[in-house]
Amino acid sequence: MALLQPILDLVDLLYKKGLRDVVISPGSRSAPLTLAVARHPGLRTRVVPDERSAGFTALGMAQMTGLPVALICTSGSAVYNLSPALAEAYFQEVPLLLLTADRPPEWLYQQDGQTIAQAGIFGTHVKRSYDLPADYTHADARWFIERTGNEAVNLCAATPSGPVHINIPLREPFYPKADESFVYGAGRMVEALPVDRQLPTPVWHSLLDEWDATERKLIAVGQMPYSPELIRLLTQISQELQVPVIGEIISNLGRNELFISTSDTLLAQKDTALLKQLRPDLLITLGNSFLTRNLKTYLRTYPPTRHWHIRPTTERLIDPFRSMTTQIPMEPLPFLQKLLNDVDYQRFKQGDDDSDEESSYLTTWQTADSAARRRVETHLRDAPFTDWSATQRVLESLPDGSHLHLGNSMPVRYANMCGLDARQEVHVWANRGTSGIDGCMSTAVGAALRTETIVTLLIGDVSFFYDRNALWQPDLPNNLRIVLLNNAGGHIFRIIDGSSSQPELETYFETPHDLTAERTAADHHCDYMAVSDKNGLTEALGHFFIPSDRPQILEIKTNKFVNEADFKVYKTAQLNL
Amino acid sequence: MALLQPILDLVDLLYKKGLRDVVISPGSRSAPLTLAVARHPGLRTRVVPDERSAGFTALGMAQMTGLPVALICTSGSAVYNLSPALAEAYFQEVPLLLLTADRPPEWLYQQDGQTIAQAGIFGTHVKRSYDLPADYTHADARWFIERTGNEAVNLCAATPSGPVHINIPLREPFYPKADESFVYGAGRMVEALPVDRQLPTPVWHSLLDEWDATERKLIAVGQMPYSPELIRLLTQISQELQVPVIGEIISNLGRNELFISTSDTLLAQKDTALLKQLRPDLLITLGNSFLTRNLKTYLRTYPPTRHWHIRPTTERLIDPFRSMTTQIPMEPLPFLQKLLNDVDYQRFKQGDDDSDEESSYLTTWQTADSAARRRVETHLRDAPFTDWSATQRVLESLPDGSHLHLGNSMPVRYANMCGLDARQEVHVWANRGTSGIDGCMSTAVGAALRTETIVTLLIGDVSFFYDRNALWQPDLPNNLRIVLLNNAGGHIFRIIDGSSSQPELETYFETPHDLTAERTAADHHCDYMAVSDKNGLTEALGHFFIPSDRPQILEIKTNKFVNEADFKVYKTAQLNL
Repeated sequence: MALLQPILDLVDLLYKKGLRDVVISPGSRSAPLTLAVARHPGLRTRVVPDERSAGFTALGMAQMTGLPVALICTSGSAVYNLSPALAEAYFQEVPLLLLTADRPPEWLYQQDGQTIAQAGIFGTHVKRSYDLPADYTHADARWFIERTGNEAVNLCAATPSGPVHINIPLREPFYPKADESFVYGAGRMVEALPVDRQLPTPVWHSLLDEWDATERKLIAVGQMPYSPELIRLLTQISQELQVPVIGEIISNLGRNELFISTSDTLLAQKDTALLKQLRPDLLITLGNSFLTRNLKTYLRTYPPTRHWHIRPTTERLIDPFRSMTTQIPMEPLPFLQKLLNDVDYQRFKQGDDDSDEESSYLTTWQTADSAARRRVETHLRDAPFTDWSATQRVLESLPDGSHLHLGNSMPVRYANMCGLDARQEVHVWANRGTSGIDGCMSTAVGAALRTETIVTLLIGDVSFFYDRNALWQPDLPNNLRIVLLNNAGGHIFRIIDGSSSQPELETYFETPHDLTAERTAADHHCDYMAVSDKNGLTEALGHFFIPSDRPQILEIKTNKFVNEADFKVYKTAQLNL
Repeated sequence: MALLQPILDLVDLLYKKGLRDVVISPGSRSAPLTLAVARHPGLRTRVVPDERSAGFTALGMAQMTGLPVALICTSGSAVYNLSPALAEAYFQEVPLLLLTADRPPEWLYQQDGQTIAQAGIFGTHVKRSYDLPADYTHADARWFIERTGNEAVNLCAATPSGPVHINIPLREPFYPKADESFVYGAGRMVEALPVDRQLPTPVWHSLLDEWDATERKLIAVGQMPYSPELIRLLTQISQELQVPVIGEIISNLGRNELFISTSDTLLAQKDTALLKQLRPDLLITLGNSFLTRNLKTYLRTYPPTRHWHIRPTTERLIDPFRSMTTQIPMEPLPFLQKLLNDVDYQRFKQGDDDSDEESSYLTTWQTADSAARRRVETHLRDAPFTDWSATQRVLESLPDGSHLHLGNSMPVRYANMCGLDARQEVHVWANRGTSGIDGCMSTAVGAALRTETIVTLLIGDVSFFYDRNALWQPDLPNNLRIVLLNNAGGHIFRIIDGSSSQPELETYFETPHDLTAERTAADHHCDYMAVSDKNGLTEALGHFFIPSDRPQILEIKTNKFVNEADFKVYKTAQLNL
């Protein structure tokens, strides 16, 4: 096993650099990696047989811990099965370190088993891809491995964090003899020191001049992890500087009297006079992707004069509103804090107070938001039992401070239209990097493994069955709660205007099925209950979140035609807000 | 919809070029493709929600029909979910045409949903990748699309066939209006004429000289689809020219008195005198990958002097035995036919007959093979109820002329050690391109959709649950028979020497579980029966293959410790054959 010392050093380096969790899918070619991790005294392991699910499980763990999570898989198509999670991690900026075992390069295209072209296989969906040497006898090769390990982990965690791939060709033997012991601690660690990113003073001054020169300022927050500091700061900015702040459910600002949380409904209306009034002069954005199509359409139609985007890198120009004028390569918190301080100080010096224009702009947004909010509340109060009204009941019942994972397609949209009360302090997650349905459940499982609090997944039936291998892993976490909205098909296609009117709707888009989660729950030792009306749901939610010794699945069965009709009523109401 | 006429023409072109089957995974971005196919009068469609399973379903259909099968999926991580099947198709040389919907390129890296870098995403695992323009107004763009469609389908089917990727950016609107009708037939088709590949006469003469100059000739056949012509020809060559012919179960030659079918057992023995006698002077190989590690090791240890590999392309040098001297870029059938004719004619002219050396070489192989075969038969006759002995019972019971799909890991190996009687004329398939466990069941489903005969899948439990979404598609074919060898974990790791002795065996390699297929069968409307002893199996097999109106799943429950102990007995016996 002496030849594999560089592998032990590599694994130990992960630990030294703060990585703690490794998700492993079984394989023989990858055995040296698996054993190096399993025998390491400080690393925690998790075995997930389906690599697609393993990838998303690791993603959920990395979201929860904020640290890179390593993945180990064997050679061949196993590697490709990681790719959906990898793409999600890349666009969601979650640090995953992929350690893929490979055959030595001379075996490629030799009709050998489990051999595909793994070097660079993930293309531009990793921050970088390394291909280690297969032979370690030369000192240069060992230096390459040691250096690469350091660079890879640093790069994985560096802002914006994301997936990094190390492809590791391994020769036989893969297994140590009984008397061989593993020695850790011999490798070299290279530190990469953090830096604070600050704008030069003259640049600050020009920004403050821009701030002063514009009356109507608007802050819009894309997907962000829950951050009490950010909420506090945005609250202060909104109150003191009279700036409306738009948040979506995935922005994790919560719904309160201050923030604009119903933009999807609010901006759908046809009152162009109001929409013009809402137009900002200066738009400030932060966070990752925005969910609400109506918000994007609105800002493209009523573009700001200036648009600052706060993102700690300028490597890509991400301009979904087509209005950006300034990339501010800082972390949002220090930037906003300094902005608040400097504007406050300037006003103090100048004896200024808020202009009328500013406070009226804020009021206009807040009034419109309240109206939209009331419209949603009224609609839901009168609505029959639908996916949407059930979603609202579930959201209201979430334990304070718990975590909510939102499945893609309709659940995340329904939840966004409901919003979450800020006082609940629920942490909201969703795979909005690629917005796929392929790993929402596995991600929630990964998250639940790394917290003691309740983790609730709200998911549709197609996403649930797509990713049911999420439940195929030993010892599912008992704090996992799965709320399955089962409308017996891909309901979004019945909601979208274009597809709903096609004769092919059922066969090619909705693809109806008669599955329920009952047997899947039994197979994987989850408690299961099903409800199909308001009373049943109320009763179930009464005890669903109580700590239990098994994961819980609550299946909410709704009627697709009722959902469809109710949503049409809402759409009409929304237009005439 | 007029702007999408090039999409209609592209789809119609597939039909004109002989493609008939399209596997569709639902999506909105891909709706123009889906509708163009669904409304085409000649194309058959199949809707599979999980793209990973859709890819393998298409693979099984293409294997069965011998024609390219198209796949349609929406943008984003859906595309990556096709990649495991794609890699398998590439290495197995199965023609798949991937039509992936994409957002127009200006949307990439703009935090838009379901947007990843799709152009060229499959790297070297497709024969070629095309990225169509997003706008069709310019005549050059329409020419590009028309030309690309022709090139792509031709390339997909050309020898060696394989996957080709067309990435198709699509702008809204995706859906036609109610009064729009689709017009097919306007596009231009470019024919690509077939050619016969023949060796120049002087080259033939030099090959025949080599043939004459060598005494001990051996033919070894890798994975091949079932071909009565090839069996007939190899039978003739073996009998008339006294050449031993080695086939594995995936070579589809069947087991008879003539062919060497027990090479895995035969070549494991330690009798070096015999092994030396078996060494060929001239080795002729054809087909794709070889399964038997013992065969590879043997030929590397006892290499031939000359080695001809018959494969209709020289693009890659595929040399797993490390002995190739000559690449013969022809189809095996015409080459072998001409070889037989020319050698026969030469002998007739010269009045030669078989040399003693030649006939004794054949006899040596056949005698050794018979001995190995008897050893296997004796072992299985005395064996307890194991995966292996159950496999033999299943193989013996297969309906004549039916199709057998072998799952990877142990099932394909057990089946190879048993062999299949040639008189059964069973067609054997296995995903030996990448040898993954990720899509064996989906492939069998795809195959069963394209034949009326019984398709039996023999699969292990980890592969079964990995790919259980294979069963999540409407109207599973009733001719599908799934035989599940359930030993409650990844049993191969208990069989492999290295992993079986590690203290981490259970947790990190075998990963035991208590799942059975019963609930999965019920969810997907399959008939289910379980057996756990010989009598139960005999009884079940008595009616398992009778035509039925639902797919059938037969779960064979075995004990992993019994399997392990029995296999150890065999391994010892094999060494001392």
